[in-house]
Amino acid sequence: MHPMLSEFIGTALLVLFGNGVVANVCLKKTKGNDSGWIVVAAGWGIAVYIGAFCSDAFSGAHLNPAVSIAMLVGGKLSLVDTAVYIVGQMGGAMFGAVLVYLFYREHFRATDDVDAKLACFCTAPAIRDNKQAFFCEALGTFALILPIFLMVTPSFISGDAPVDPAPVLGLGSIGLLPVGLLVFGIGLSLGGTTGYAINPARDLGPRIIHALIPMSGKRDSDWGYSWVPVIGPIVGAVVAAFLYRLIA
Amino acid sequence: MHPMLSEFIGTALLVLFGNGVVANVCLKKTKGNDSGWIVVAAGWGIAVYIGAFCSDAFSGAHLNPAVSIAMLVGGKLSLVDTAVYIVGQMGGAMFGAVLVYLFYREHFRATDDVDAKLACFCTAPAIRDNKQAFFCEALGTFALILPIFLMVTPSFISGDAPVDPAPVLGLGSIGLLPVGLLVFGIGLSLGGTTGYAINPARDLGPRIIHALIPMSGKRDSDWGYSWVPVIGPIVGAVVAAFLYRLIA
Amino acid sequence: MHPMLSEFIGTALLVLFGNGVVANVCLKKTKGNDSGWIVVAAGWGIAVYIGAFCSDAFSGAHLNPAVSIAMLVGGKLSLVDTAVYIVGQMGGAMFGAVLVYLFYREHFRATDDVDAKLACFCTAPAIRDNKQAFFCEALGTFALILPIFLMVTPSFISGDAPVDPAPVLGLGSIGLLPVGLLVFGIGLSLGGTTGYAINPARDLGPRIIHALIPMSGKRDSDWGYSWVPVIGPIVGAVVAAFLYRLIA
Amino acid sequence: MHPMLSEFIGTALLVLFGNGVVANVCLKKTKGNDSGWIVVAAGWGIAVYIGAFCSDAFSGAHLNPAVSIAMLVGGKLSLVDTAVYIVGQMGGAMFGAVLVYLFYREHFRATDDVDAKLACFCTAPAIRDNKQAFFCEALGTFALILPIFLMVTPSFISGDAPVDPAPVLGLGSIGLLPVGLLVFGIGLSLGGTTGYAINPARDLGPRIIHALIPMSGKRDSDWGYSWVPVIGPIVGAVVAAFLYRLIA
Repeated sequence: MHPMLSEFIGTALLVLFGNGVVANVCLKKTKGNDSGWIVVAAGWGIAVYIGAFCSDAFSGAHLNPAVSIAMLVGGKLSLVDTAVYIVGQMGGAMFGAVLVYLFYREHFRATDDVDAKLACFCTAPAIRDNKQAFFCEALGTFALILPIFLMVTPSFISGDAPVDPAPVLGLGSIGLLPVGLLVFGIGLSLGGTTGYAINPARDLGPRIIHALIPMSGKRDSDWGYSWVPVIGPIVGAVVAAFLYRLIA
Repeated sequence: MHPMLSEFIGTALLVLFGNGVVANVCLKKTKGNDSGWIVVAAGWGIAVYIGAFCSDAFSGAHLNPAVSIAMLVGGKLSLVDTAVYIVGQMGGAMFGAVLVYLFYREHFRATDDVDAKLACFCTAPAIRDNKQAFFCEALGTFALILPIFLMVTPSFISGDAPVDPAPVLGLGSIGLLPVGLLVFGIGLSLGGTTGYAINPARDLGPRIIHALIPMSGKRDSDWGYSWVPVIGPIVGAVVAAFLYRLIA
Repeated sequence: MHPMLSEFIGTALLVLFGNGVVANVCLKKTKGNDSGWIVVAAGWGIAVYIGAFCSDAFSGAHLNPAVSIAMLVGGKLSLVDTAVYIVGQMGGAMFGAVLVYLFYREHFRATDDVDAKLACFCTAPAIRDNKQAFFCEALGTFALILPIFLMVTPSFISGDAPVDPAPVLGLGSIGLLPVGLLVFGIGLSLGGTTGYAINPARDLGPRIIHALIPMSGKRDSDWGYSWVPVIGPIVGAVVAAFLYRLIA
Repeated sequence: MHPMLSEFIGTALLVLFGNGVVANVCLKKTKGNDSGWIVVAAGWGIAVYIGAFCSDAFSGAHLNPAVSIAMLVGGKLSLVDTAVYIVGQMGGAMFGAVLVYLFYREHFRATDDVDAKLACFCTAPAIRDNKQAFFCEALGTFALILPIFLMVTPSFISGDAPVDPAPVLGLGSIGLLPVGLLVFGIGLSLGGTTGYAINPARDLGPRIIHALIPMSGKRDSDWGYSWVPVIGPIVGAVVAAFLYRLIA
């Protein structure tokens, strides 16, 4: 499978499951309505895990432009490949957001709260202060990338497909379990301020869909905040990559 | 063990644990009454996991007619074997539903809500619109089958028993952990609309038992909806199988 | 380590963590007061998991007289060894119950509800009907033992220590993860009626301690119910062992 | 990587994620506000897991002076190395506490409850009785250390880096999963009385930061209690190490 398609599929699944759990918790009349932060954090952890094990063998499961740019900066991915990866990620995130909208369409109709509907696409800070939110997104992404780097060998997380991916059920996918648990942990511990985008594609792609999609009763797409979950994660990932080089 | 018996046992355990957690949450006076969506989703994830590791070595743990039919369409399972598998799955689902009724009998008696009692057998949409529910069941099953296919080699998920199943505790069963987590994730993220049957046997088998069982104070078995969680999952699984062939 | 000591330590840890989580949820002024069924079920799943990985290499981690008696019936454990195992299990369960009492002593004092205090030692049915509770305890234990047998080879779960236990962190203990998840699932799905003793030592041992311990404001130890979580689990385990022989 | 740096990074991540989840649950206007004990216990379990897999290959992932002192007593770590480890742990815990404060700064401002703000740094008993709290911290740490010792070979948990750490994703990190689950279990079952510091650095380091940091509306740092989560865990760990030598 071509890496761009692999990143597209992985990120689409990531957003389908990730924004899906937000819709289940935030929209009215769903079976998981108001079921709490444990549901949101567990859902996003598994969302990343599923996206990762579906694309790991074909593109190394970046699923996040911040990861690909950190690889570029670290000399692990060419400029062209980085662009290819990001195109796949942005396309997948937008497609996943469309699927979530179609899936929960009746419940979008049943919901009046326009902020809740926006939250099913992209993040917003609990207390509005863009500088502080930038810090949170950068630190949250740093706390994603440094542990992943310390967990694996540098060659493994490069854009190259692993030389010998385990061909049977449960080896590659079990090996990615710590990544899912890490994202679960970031949600539990560092999700409380900005809602942990920690991924520019996961936030910007669905935000564009929110702006474009013909949905009755929607607010603006909060473009004044939109740069924070794009630039913050990139900065956090690049700092983590440099620190890793310095210490390991 | 004969594959039909294996599918019978696996699906019976799947429904015993799966409908069991619904009964624990929805029926009155249980210890888990009203304990929330995290309990339902975790319970169903483990239900599938248990059913899978009990039948994996003997029949490949389909436990779902949509999976077997996708295999048939993909040329991995003969027509006769597909029928054998589905008979085992339907029988197991019906037997499991009887066990849940017997287990929670006193609590069925203590519960007046006839919809809650039906929910302990089969699914119902949160907002009634059969076309939309069909889409949800198809997409939910697609989001089950495509990741499973991308997680394993095609030969492994065929109806043939694995050539060399790991004989010691924790290898085969650990290898199936991603499947359990995937079902947990589907519940968290895509369970909010229809209650994620994503399996014709899991829904139709217990629905038949609901119709037949002599239970005081029960409603009709909602036959007008019954085709949705049968045809939806089959369509979703077949589409996933075709897409997999196209891309991988 | 002698198998009796191993079973003692494993069962003591099982009861310390298992009854500990009940105390945290049920007693007054604790940090986990009233935190719900997900906490109870997760706590018991991990309790069994911890007890199991601590005693697995030395005694095969029965931790449950119903398991040992099923082994005796199946010819896997001698009568003398069965007695040795059960003595270790009962002693460990009683010791664990003493530790929970000492640990939560201040909170036992702060709690008026005598049923809640008894629940920190042993189980009680949600709806009182001993015949139905017997069925639930037997079926719950059956649903524990059959999957364990289908998960492992018979020789592995015999009382003999595994020939070559994995000596490094995370192999033996990872291999037991499915057992912990199974117990978590039994709690979620089949814990709603009787509180899933599914283990005579886990229930009778702490019940004896409840009767003996000098605690202010305690009720009787509910001896009229005490035989149910002893005989029910033994019957369920023996039936599971016979069925396993028949089918596998 | 030098062991002191490894312990610094591991403990900083442990406190960032661990105190982060407390801040998310206890401070006002967070997305996880008042989301319950399951969130706290899961967050701390993953916090220890992340800290452990990031430092395991370089320092054996003590992350806890009680562990290092138990190693010293058991002859596994020299006096100098023990001091080196503890300096790294204390520094990391203090740095992690600063990060949590900076991350949740706006929410510290939005919160009036001075006890809740202190809880984001260090533990406090639910019912104030230092002798009983000492017993709880000692027993809680004992219940951490004995299972870890029974789970691994003695040489493995020495201060020496493992001879041949698995270099690819998911082996070392999967192998540490039982430790994360153990800490999750301690939180669920034994966290109800003192809030389970079970680690002198995790409690004293952030307490010092609480005393030093210029935060509006803060209470004293509860120094009268501060010795309990320092001495209690050390005693519990040393007793566990001696018992392990006696029995295994």
